[in-house]
Amino acid sequence: MGVLDLSRQLMRRCDELGRITDEPGRLTRTFASPAMRRANELVGSWMRNAGLEVCEDAAFNLLGRWNSHQRNSKTLLLGSHLDTVRDAGRYDGPLGVVTAIAAVKLLRERGVTLPFHVEVVGFSDEEGVRYQTAYLGSRAFAGTLSATDLARIEEKQIVKARRRASEFLGYAEVHLEQGPVLEKKNLPVGVVTAIAGQSRLRVSFSGLAGHAGTVPMAMRRDALTGAAEFILAVEALAKSKAGLVATVGKIEALPGASNVICGGVMLTLDVRDQHDGRRLAAVKSLRAKATTIARKRGLKVKWELVQQTGAVQCDKMMAGIFSRCVAAGGLPVLKLPSGAGHDGAAISALCPVAMLFVRCKGGISHNPAESVKGADAGVAIEVLADFILRLARQS
Amino acid sequence: MGVLDLSRQLMRRCDELGRITDEPGRLTRTFASPAMRRANELVGSWMRNAGLEVCEDAAFNLLGRWNSHQRNSKTLLLGSHLDTVRDAGRYDGPLGVVTAIAAVKLLRERGVTLPFHVEVVGFSDEEGVRYQTAYLGSRAFAGTLSATDLARIEEKQIVKARRRASEFLGYAEVHLEQGPVLEKKNLPVGVVTAIAGQSRLRVSFSGLAGHAGTVPMAMRRDALTGAAEFILAVEALAKSKAGLVATVGKIEALPGASNVICGGVMLTLDVRDQHDGRRLAAVKSLRAKATTIARKRGLKVKWELVQQTGAVQCDKMMAGIFSRCVAAGGLPVLKLPSGAGHDGAAISALCPVAMLFVRCKGGISHNPAESVKGADAGVAIEVLADFILRLARQS
Repeated sequence: MGVLDLSRQLMRRCDELGRITDEPGRLTRTFASPAMRRANELVGSWMRNAGLEVCEDAAFNLLGRWNSHQRNSKTLLLGSHLDTVRDAGRYDGPLGVVTAIAAVKLLRERGVTLPFHVEVVGFSDEEGVRYQTAYLGSRAFAGTLSATDLARIEEKQIVKARRRASEFLGYAEVHLEQGPVLEKKNLPVGVVTAIAGQSRLRVSFSGLAGHAGTVPMAMRRDALTGAAEFILAVEALAKSKAGLVATVGKIEALPGASNVICGGVMLTLDVRDQHDGRRLAAVKSLRAKATTIARKRGLKVKWELVQQTGAVQCDKMMAGIFSRCVAAGGLPVLKLPSGAGHDGAAISALCPVAMLFVRCKGGISHNPAESVKGADAGVAIEVLADFILRLARQS
Repeated sequence: MGVLDLSRQLMRRCDELGRITDEPGRLTRTFASPAMRRANELVGSWMRNAGLEVCEDAAFNLLGRWNSHQRNSKTLLLGSHLDTVRDAGRYDGPLGVVTAIAAVKLLRERGVTLPFHVEVVGFSDEEGVRYQTAYLGSRAFAGTLSATDLARIEEKQIVKARRRASEFLGYAEVHLEQGPVLEKKNLPVGVVTAIAGQSRLRVSFSGLAGHAGTVPMAMRRDALTGAAEFILAVEALAKSKAGLVATVGKIEALPGASNVICGGVMLTLDVRDQHDGRRLAAVKSLRAKATTIARKRGLKVKWELVQQTGAVQCDKMMAGIFSRCVAAGGLPVLKLPSGAGHDGAAISALCPVAMLFVRCKGGISHNPAESVKGADAGVAIEVLADFILRLARQS
């Protein structure tokens, strides 16, 4: 099959996978669910069709292996995840798995032999819908599950999915961009520089509730106007630093009546950057800003760190190969960070990682409206196949 | 009884009324409820004790009448309401009714005769808890119920409570301030200039939801940052105009997840002023501001007027008498508008109205923590009794 046929097949496969769901009427496929079992069976059949040896590990990760004639060589891991969010689109995750299968099929049909083994993986839990603990599949694979994670889940046997770092030479993942940058730049693919680190915080302002008609403006301690000032400070700081993004996505104002001055606000703060130092400096600066706003307005502020993860830098050598593949295809090379988390962040504990982003319509993901062009998927197949060949030449 | 004894009795009566409730464990007394029947019986007994002829009208308003020897004279209406909000305090409403009873008792015990009739009223519905339509009692009394109001309620007979404008020379109401101004100025009472008009609006900003990690700051159409800018504009405008108060008390951000850029915000806007022109100009200016913010940020704005009521000016002659009474008591005269609505707004359709505010602790009302000092209640009794005497001298 040529790339055009493979890309058409890839699009049909994404459609077919998109109908395998745990919830009638919308696409929801979670860790170890009946739909995931059926998805693994179907994708396993595609892997066999591409000449791979298929198995499922103890963490429900689907694995398709292409052994090299060089028996003692390392393994190049390719893939993404097969689980979804609730009411998901068809591409976030599956796109990377079916692209890897298509690239392998392309090379095998050309009679290519490689100096390393290749393993295509469909991870079982990236979104964390089932247990609210993301990357169960890839962290079981990397052997980085914590006791807390294990205490939360029923399937304790997933620890047996652990693999050795010495097996792998690297992990390369194709994924939907989930953002609008490639579309804006009119490019089908982009090379990922890093998976951004993230600080998630809960910030509360408390003032004094009061009657909206009887308390003069000068005597108010309105928590919502304080929160509004903070929300604008968050935006202003992020706009002033290239690469930094900061978001207040959730806000609750109490008591929350039209005729009552707000006595308390809880809001969430999400700060991301591919450079940890820049992210931590931003969080520190915003905390100082919240304190200043609160003091000026007679409010109290409570600052709680909910979660914090460091940035994962993509491997420069592998990202460099991705860039050369893109350029060889006659396309401008756009390097961009990933603001979203990916299995690569978990697999980076095991081996170097690299990622290729594929343009998505309107930057929309985690939504049935997720959309990818067949032509862009074709570019991704070609780039990934070329990546494998160039990596082989370097090895 | 002297004023000291009367004020002590008044405080005990507020305590006793505060125990008459429809909900065990908290004070809630709504229109035509069993608790209101019991409250009317109890307050009726206090009216009889003060020498008044007691009846209940068709709208469950409790009336206590002191007829003048001048049979064809008009009637001075005194009082407030006996219903409460849910989980109420003891003073909002009842304070004005028991103060009127105490003032009448003081004058009758002194053997005063008046050139007008006096009627003390305990209105049956000011808070509107039962049918979400405020002033049922006083609007039935004033004959201003609308067909919409009547369609909503079971007790259609309340229209029969209608009284003739020609009967009344005026209405004077003592009420808890429900704000912090008197406490701040260290004054027991204040003379109300007007009941503020109010505009209630619902303002919605819509932008585009997106992934908090993947959409660069410059490409966002964040509805919440737009709303934050608007909230600060509301505050800034109200602070710049003496007498104007404007409040955003309720906000909902959708989808409302910590890792999703906000796609839509609904907020409430409450604007009040004793001058209708100033209020309407403020609303117009804020609408223009919302439009400017939305345009600048690529958002859409929806502007909905929920409710609008005009200001009611207190009668200058009666307010002037109240001021002279306060000054005669050796106290500074503070004139202030009422930001909250009162039965007086409804009764203004029938006759001139005036109000006297009593200091309340911390500006707190609509809350079990509502608190009034016995000494301040004593001042209110003296001022109201003096008001009646001075009005009699003028008549």
